Order: sequence, then C-alpha cells, then structure tokens
Amino acid sequence: MTRKQLTEQIFRKRSYLCVGLDTDPEKIPNHLKGHTDAVFEFNKAIIDATQDLCVAYKINTAFYEAQGVKGWEVMERTLQYIPKDIFTIADAKRGDIGNTSSQYARAFFETIPFDSITVAPYMGEDSIRPFQSYEGKWAIVLGLTSNAGAMDFEMQTFVDGDHLYEKVLSTVAGWGTPENTMFVIGATQASSFRTVRAITPHHFYLVPGVGTQGGSLKDISEIALIKDCGLLVNVSRAIIFASEKEDFAAEARAIAQQYQYEMDGYLKKL
Amino acid sequence: MTRKQLTEQIFRKRSYLCVGLDTDPEKIPNHLKGHTDAVFEFNKAIIDATQDLCVAYKINTAFYEAQGVKGWEVMERTLQYIPKDIFTIADAKRGDIGNTSSQYARAFFETIPFDSITVAPYMGEDSIRPFQSYEGKWAIVLGLTSNAGAMDFEMQTFVDGDHLYEKVLSTVAGWGTPENTMFVIGATQASSFRTVRAITPHHFYLVPGVGTQGGSLKDISEIALIKDCGLLVNVSRAIIFASEKEDFAAEARAIAQQYQYEMDGYLKKL
Repeated sequence: MTRKQLTEQIFRKRSYLCVGLDTDPEKIPNHLKGHTDAVFEFNKAIIDATQDLCVAYKINTAFYEAQGVKGWEVMERTLQYIPKDIFTIADAKRGDIGNTSSQYARAFFETIPFDSITVAPYMGEDSIRPFQSYEGKWAIVLGLTSNAGAMDFEMQTFVDGDHLYEKVLSTVAGWGTPENTMFVIGATQASSFRTVRAITPHHFYLVPGVGTQGGSLKDISEIALIKDCGLLVNVSRAIIFASEKEDFAAEARAIAQQYQYEMDGYLKKL
Repeated sequence: MTRKQLTEQIFRKRSYLCVGLDTDPEKIPNHLKGHTDAVFEFNKAIIDATQDLCVAYKINTAFYEAQGVKGWEVMERTLQYIPKDIFTIADAKRGDIGNTSSQYARAFFETIPFDSITVAPYMGEDSIRPFQSYEGKWAIVLGLTSNAGAMDFEMQTFVDGDHLYEKVLSTVAGWGTPENTMFVIGATQASSFRTVRAITPHHFYLVPGVGTQGGSLKDISEIALIKDCGLLVNVSRAIIFASEKEDFAAEARAIAQQYQYEMDGYLKKL
C-alpha cells in the first residue's frame, strides 16, 4: 500500500487507529474457547466489528507462533480475511544479517503478503535494507519503544550527544524514504515525541502503548500529527479484550468508536 | 540442556561445532528439488552425516518462515529428527515487550522445544527475561554480530566509554547467569574478542561468521576458549552447501570433519 492510499483511507474514515490482533487463546471469551477454530473466529468477529473505524490491523506474530503450525495457518487466514484496502502490519520484530533478512522479507511480503513488518535495528544497515526494497511495502523500524526496557539501551547516550534511539531514527531514515519506512514510537514516551518529530519530520510512526500501557492519545496527537497525519496509533488489548463475554465484538466496536471519535477531533485541527 | 550436559558432549566429541541449517530451497542439490519433502530430506541427510562431529544444530527460522505453513511444519519435523543429546538453537532473533516475549519463549521452548533461542536486545530487560526463566533453556543474546551492519549501532560509543555491544554484554549478563545466557559474537570481530572475554569471562558464545563470511577459527579459539570450552562455532553454508551434487552429505561431512579435527587441536591445549 502506498502512502497516498494509506492517507486517503485515514481522511475518509477520519481515523488513524490500528487494531492489534494480539489474540491470546487464553483470553478469548469462554463461549468461543471450545470452538475448533477459536482464534480465527475471534479475529473474524473483531475485524467485522471494527473495519470501518480503523485503518490498519497489526498481527502480533508471537501469539500465533506460540500455537505452532496451526497458529501460523490461522495468521495466514486472518490476513486474508482483512479487507484489501486496510493497511496490514506483521508485528514480528525481525532483523538479521542481509541474506537472512531477505528471507524474512520474503516470508512477510510475499508468502504471507502483509503491507509492512516491524524490524529490530540492532544489527544495522544490511539487516534493514531488504525490508525497504519492495514496491508498496514498508519497514516499520523500532525507534523508542513503549516498555520499561526502553531505558536500558534505547535511552542511553552516545558520545556525540545522541541517544541510541535518536541515532537509529536519523541513520535508518537515510537508508529509506518516508514512502517505505516508518518508526515505532511508544505512546508512553510522550516527552520524547518533539525530539522524534524534529529528527523525522515526514515519517509515519506506529504508536503502541495507548490503552492498557497507559499512553495518552491526546498528548501524542497534539505533538506528532503532521499534514497528512503521519500517525498510526495501535490499541490491542483495550479493544479486543474489552469484554470477556458474548458481547466482546460489540464492546470492541464501542471502544474503537471512542478512539475514532477522538481522532476525528484531532484531524479537524490540522 | 544444562551447561554440564553441553560441556560433556563437547569433550566427548572433541568438537564445539554447530551446524547451521539455513536450508534455502533454491540452493539444495538438483536431484532433491523435485522431492515433495525436499528441505526435510536435505536436512535429514545433513544431520545423518554430521551428528557425531558437531554438538549443536542451529535452525535459521527465516528460511522456514519464507515457505509459510509448510516451512514451519518442516522446521518442527527437523527439530524432532535431531538426536536428543545434541544442543538445538532456534536462530530466530526474537525480542518484544515482556508479555510478547513470553509468547515467543512459549513458541520456541514449549510448542517447538528447542534448547535455546537467539534474542535481539534492543528493547531491554523485559524483552529478554522471559527467555532466561526456563529451567535448562538458554537465551542467546546478540552481542557483536558478524555482519557489516555491526558498525552502525553495536560499535558506537556511549558517553561512559562503552560501545553499545559492551553495554549489552555487561547488562544482560546481570539479568541471567552463565547457565542460561549465551551471547552471539561474530568471528569476523576477532579483534574484539579479548574485550568480550574480559566482560563475560564465564559465558558461552555462539560464534557465526566462520566459513563463507571469512572469520578465523584459529584466532577466536586462541582468544576465547575457557576451561569448559565456552564456545559454539557455527558454520552454515560452507558445510551444508559444500557440494551441489548427489554427494552433498558426504562433502558436508568432510568439511565438518576438518573443523572437528582443528577444534580437537585447540581443545588439547586447554
């Protein structure tokens, strides 16, 4: 999907919400647990209930890999079920030496045709470039993440004054373009969003950490929205596990609707 | 597998060789390409030919994921085929926020029961600890990798004088023990091995980069071997793709034998 197509969708739906399908089989409603295809049925219901309110779905591959071959197969079918005009993200945090990253790019851009994949930058240029070399596909590279562990290395300071995450942003931006590269910036890091926007004024960010992790949609929207939006804000657990009962899809929709409504307000100010 | 079991195997076989099953379907011999189960048949022949000469097999998950569901299934069967007394490594470079890393640990320690998994440290403590909390399982954390991209971030210097990779080594070592944590140190980085050994005197290293990538087994063995060995040296392409013909398994064995013979010499000097 091109940036233009993504942006058109955002302004049509008045939303920059990404729904995270971190579908933990232990957390899906009891009435579905006996179903032979419970995770897929759950995802299908969530997608049916939210697809007009969000512009992207993010599949957290870990939750599918934990189920082995069956999980991988459910991931494939879930991706196929997502309407083609919605942006899809393999939240897979891959990254390895060049010849191996090329195999991961093939896995998530060809074999299972996602629009984008999250990428870990530790191993540098040859580990990232293979994900930036597909027409209409995106590398979403970890910048400053939403977890406590972000302090351990990402927030450490180099001799030139840059934090590790700042060096990652400026360096990786130089290997790609704002048409094929996004960055993961956690919503729990609102105080760093001005710095992030200054380093990468034209890039889209995938923003986790709103909802269960406590980040503020208002804060990050006010700081980081740009003319063609430039944000995809992900909410996983707070939407998909909004209810443990048979009304889970309706409750997921209700929460997604609240986010969409709030986002519409911020988009109006652009 | 415990460190004691691994070490006993090393001194029994007089080898610290790890064979990397980076099985690219396009590179396997022509006579196997028509086979409906070509990758598994190839792996089976390599394992049959090398299992008395190596102490570990490393499965590079990217090459299996690129084949989708079928690839994931072949990875499972390949792991099952490896004799139980040989150390197994999921070379998967995973790492995410705590609740997601827990799912990856489940995927590679329970669903597909490898002995160890390679882990990317960028996201810090909560992304690594879940892999250090299984009895008899190992987190093999990226330290200084063998690729050109290692210069981009890993070799950058923090204000306290440490390179990023040094901070990763000293910090991650504090979260685990030499009984559940190893580090990836590329053989192409021989000049840094003394520093690495000084920071982590008791840890095992998984060392890629010997063979096709050009690292020297002699150099790294002389610098980094410790009393109970402390090294697993991985060779992938130079062994498994030693021949493109029907004799590929015999040729793989011949190359593995050369490495084992050389390793025996270094072990004798301990």
